[in-house]
Amino acid sequence: MAIMRLGRVQIRVPNWEKSVHYYKNVIGLIETARDENHVYLKAWDEHDHHSVILEKADSAGLDHLAFKCETAEDLDIYEQKLIEYGVEVDRIPAGYRIAEGEAVRFRVPTGQLVELYHEIDVVGNGMPLVNPDPWPDGLVGMAPPRLDHLLISGDDVEGTTKLFQDIFGFRIAEQLIAEDGESKIATWLFKTNTPHDVAIIKGPQGKLHHIAFWLDDWTEIRKAADLMGKNKVMIDAGPTRHGITRGTTIYFFDPSGNRNEVFCGGYITYPDSPTITWTTEDIGRAIFYFEREVNERFTTVFS
Amino acid sequence: MAIMRLGRVQIRVPNWEKSVHYYKNVIGLIETARDENHVYLKAWDEHDHHSVILEKADSAGLDHLAFKCETAEDLDIYEQKLIEYGVEVDRIPAGYRIAEGEAVRFRVPTGQLVELYHEIDVVGNGMPLVNPDPWPDGLVGMAPPRLDHLLISGDDVEGTTKLFQDIFGFRIAEQLIAEDGESKIATWLFKTNTPHDVAIIKGPQGKLHHIAFWLDDWTEIRKAADLMGKNKVMIDAGPTRHGITRGTTIYFFDPSGNRNEVFCGGYITYPDSPTITWTTEDIGRAIFYFEREVNERFTTVFS
Amino acid sequence: MAIMRLGRVQIRVPNWEKSVHYYKNVIGLIETARDENHVYLKAWDEHDHHSVILEKADSAGLDHLAFKCETAEDLDIYEQKLIEYGVEVDRIPAGYRIAEGEAVRFRVPTGQLVELYHEIDVVGNGMPLVNPDPWPDGLVGMAPPRLDHLLISGDDVEGTTKLFQDIFGFRIAEQLIAEDGESKIATWLFKTNTPHDVAIIKGPQGKLHHIAFWLDDWTEIRKAADLMGKNKVMIDAGPTRHGITRGTTIYFFDPSGNRNEVFCGGYITYPDSPTITWTTEDIGRAIFYFEREVNERFTTVFS
Amino acid sequence: MAIMRLGRVQIRVPNWEKSVHYYKNVIGLIETARDENHVYLKAWDEHDHHSVILEKADSAGLDHLAFKCETAEDLDIYEQKLIEYGVEVDRIPAGYRIAEGEAVRFRVPTGQLVELYHEIDVVGNGMPLVNPDPWPDGLVGMAPPRLDHLLISGDDVEGTTKLFQDIFGFRIAEQLIAEDGESKIATWLFKTNTPHDVAIIKGPQGKLHHIAFWLDDWTEIRKAADLMGKNKVMIDAGPTRHGITRGTTIYFFDPSGNRNEVFCGGYITYPDSPTITWTTEDIGRAIFYFEREVNERFTTVFS
Repeated sequence: MAIMRLGRVQIRVPNWEKSVHYYKNVIGLIETARDENHVYLKAWDEHDHHSVILEKADSAGLDHLAFKCETAEDLDIYEQKLIEYGVEVDRIPAGYRIAEGEAVRFRVPTGQLVELYHEIDVVGNGMPLVNPDPWPDGLVGMAPPRLDHLLISGDDVEGTTKLFQDIFGFRIAEQLIAEDGESKIATWLFKTNTPHDVAIIKGPQGKLHHIAFWLDDWTEIRKAADLMGKNKVMIDAGPTRHGITRGTTIYFFDPSGNRNEVFCGGYITYPDSPTITWTTEDIGRAIFYFEREVNERFTTVFS
Repeated sequence: MAIMRLGRVQIRVPNWEKSVHYYKNVIGLIETARDENHVYLKAWDEHDHHSVILEKADSAGLDHLAFKCETAEDLDIYEQKLIEYGVEVDRIPAGYRIAEGEAVRFRVPTGQLVELYHEIDVVGNGMPLVNPDPWPDGLVGMAPPRLDHLLISGDDVEGTTKLFQDIFGFRIAEQLIAEDGESKIATWLFKTNTPHDVAIIKGPQGKLHHIAFWLDDWTEIRKAADLMGKNKVMIDAGPTRHGITRGTTIYFFDPSGNRNEVFCGGYITYPDSPTITWTTEDIGRAIFYFEREVNERFTTVFS
Repeated sequence: MAIMRLGRVQIRVPNWEKSVHYYKNVIGLIETARDENHVYLKAWDEHDHHSVILEKADSAGLDHLAFKCETAEDLDIYEQKLIEYGVEVDRIPAGYRIAEGEAVRFRVPTGQLVELYHEIDVVGNGMPLVNPDPWPDGLVGMAPPRLDHLLISGDDVEGTTKLFQDIFGFRIAEQLIAEDGESKIATWLFKTNTPHDVAIIKGPQGKLHHIAFWLDDWTEIRKAADLMGKNKVMIDAGPTRHGITRGTTIYFFDPSGNRNEVFCGGYITYPDSPTITWTTEDIGRAIFYFEREVNERFTTVFS
Repeated sequence: MAIMRLGRVQIRVPNWEKSVHYYKNVIGLIETARDENHVYLKAWDEHDHHSVILEKADSAGLDHLAFKCETAEDLDIYEQKLIEYGVEVDRIPAGYRIAEGEAVRFRVPTGQLVELYHEIDVVGNGMPLVNPDPWPDGLVGMAPPRLDHLLISGDDVEGTTKLFQDIFGFRIAEQLIAEDGESKIATWLFKTNTPHDVAIIKGPQGKLHHIAFWLDDWTEIRKAADLMGKNKVMIDAGPTRHGITRGTTIYFFDPSGNRNEVFCGGYITYPDSPTITWTTEDIGRAIFYFEREVNERFTTVFS
């Protein structure tokens, strides 16, 4: 009876062949379907048909992000709430995307398209539901078990934050506050028990800072970094730890220039978790706890 | 507007002094209050006043377990639902326990006392809410960040499972099914996004199999085991991995004979996560994936 | 100008097909040659042609162990020393084994055949010697980088220990002393800077307790255990830590009944490292530090 | 009958109080003695009285490095060899430093003072030699078990390399070769079974690039980085992996400006290990395998 998770991101990848190869063989996602301009991918431990759609395009960026809702009725309820909130809403018909049902689409104040959906084919995680092993054979690359979160940018951070809070019941795990002591430069929002399902940062309107894949272990972070070395992936920052969320991390770029993250760790959140606030004089430590300084590329490159 | 988490367990510890020392210095919980017959403890990353209460007693065992609800109204709503379900319900007045408000108390079919509460003093996790470090100084022992789950035993596993499902919306992550292919020998239930907040197994009525503390890392499991070696803690099984939940684990006993677990890992759950079923011929692998056999003590000792 | 390392073990494997499959696909050794009754294997980071030879046989056990010497002259020097010491010595001609030169062969007081050799084909570790990656692609199974040590049994532990000390300059890293406070039940001997290259324990004459493969990381130990679970390998003990050597470990059996170990960690040794002594009342903690007790199988099964 | 290990470095620390505090509380070395201008320190798992001497001084840098020899006679033998090699040699009398005997002193072509010594008080590693635990209580900071290696700079890299090879029997594990395909820009030399005990790089004459402390685990690297964050230690690079040696690493500065490293992993070496060669077009990957580029500070700051 609510949003369950960040279920899908659709990413534009101008460098098409290399990007498809990269997401399949370096990240290690599994292709589940393909049409002329899209490749549908899932992480190995996800049961749904796909969580990442690559789109052949002229420029890099985020086509949209989508939350999976628990019930079909959630779409109607949320649609009504959005309309009452003054948000323009579209319906995407079932079958518009492979293996998916209807979706509700709207734009958040920071400019990104967001969809809500419930129906999607379930293909399983490659293991039986009776007496399974802990992991399947044949994993390749970094092999993240799942998509974790994304960070989007735009002007009205507070507007998008408030919308996610008011309509969907997201809560603020952490926030970065401007020197005025009040206005939000960035927010990290959770709906699950993780430290963030989506984050929003002041920056170019309608843009993507990064999508993040979950890794289970600091040792998996090292393996991911080895694979970046082997495959000449461009690293932006890390391996390091975030002050925000406490998670360990590497930022790097796909062959089309979209920033990816592998993320591991962080604390558990609950509805009563207190919001942690960061001030700008500690921004280095907030973003990269070990080094306590942020490289310029990290704060200026979006896609 | 729901149960948020397993918030508290109250454990009977006949071997009083040694047990208090053990939970504080070997497990590494923090004492927050004490009266004549109780010591109140919290794990370092919990914000509430306590999550474990030790009770001076003649025999080991579980006094009760308690779930923290999101709002005060949840208590009324759940109370009403329980009454309609035919369950006898008590109210524990505010102030009955140190730093706590009112609680709703009832007994589940497997015989354990369960409480629901909302009010409890918030004492924080030892770090500021502005610009914090990822962990505080001065941690001792295994230093789990939080209580994770517990496993209770009794005759009517299906009754307690159904009650948790029907009244509180718990879901079954995994289940162990008898040779008849139908009746449940054990269930692992989640309300958060973890693989289990509470589990129920066929066994002596009203008893405790173990309480489990969360550890972040397989390396923390090794450190916990080292501390068991150093402190002559009796290990029951592990370090090993569960087939069920995929988590890594050690089982061991407190000085009073209550079984403890340190648990790490496992997958994320959502309302649409499929239930995984285990059959009895694979019970060894289900419980201890590496060894594929269960020691007798593990299946026969409860407290 | 001395023994460089434990270079080779030859193991008898009656359960031939399954054992060959196991050493190649579960342990993850690489086949480099084969004749009618032997398969030659190397671990991935070894440069020499082979370190493990499997031998088709009627019963499990150790055919021989062999040390690689730094120079061809070492063979003559050691041969002379052995003869002066009263040990009967044979020469194995070049070509007796695939890819090897001459060897000097003798029997130690505990009954095992030991060889010394220098010449062996160098096949490399699968990576270039110019600008290599840290690890090659295509590793399978536990993928240990190298053979580490072995533990042999027999009656005259002190005789074999003394021979290794007097002739080859091995030193005692650790020893287990009988209740008389003097006689050695077991010794752990090093020639490299590791805590042991070979160990000797009181037990059936001329037998093998285990051969051990090196793993780099506690996380690799977990992965090895996962593979034991997946492949139904019989575990003897572990994952655990040794008091002796401090190493982390799993003991398990190949399909022919030879005990294997994966070993990780331990301290560095030097010629001036003090010998650590264990007494029998602490034997549990010496062998398995976490559990502080030794299962009967571990002390009674040899091959 | 040879050099056993890098036994000691003496480091000049102008920022005296902060540096002493840092080496004791952030690195976590143990003070064993002190005179007016020196603090003597050891890592916890070293048995000798000290391995690091801090010296009050006007500028940062390396006073000298010293190798511990196996026997007292080694000093005479090496002294004679050095004289024959044309190297000027001094004798440092016993008692010149606290807890030490005589030393032989000479200067290598790259300008550093090197000492050879055998006698030093043995103080143990804080644990009994009978039935010890795997680690002592009370460790603080990063708590490296031992000093591992150092990297020195100067003009005549080949001269110092050759001297270490010819006189002491060091071998080249890895080397970085100039564009002429021949001349050595840097060499990594081993005498133990580690990938390097000392390394030499083209750079300012007689200078120190870094001293490195050993850590056992990639997780210890993360903990060390956390402590750098907590204690505002300036990080130069890392956590990352070296192409050279495969080790994982962080470079950072002590409060006086001497570069430190924590180093973990790497392969085992033997006298027959092949030399790995790196060419300048791959220098980024050689130094920092993940990022494949070297920051300017790393190549220009020496002390």
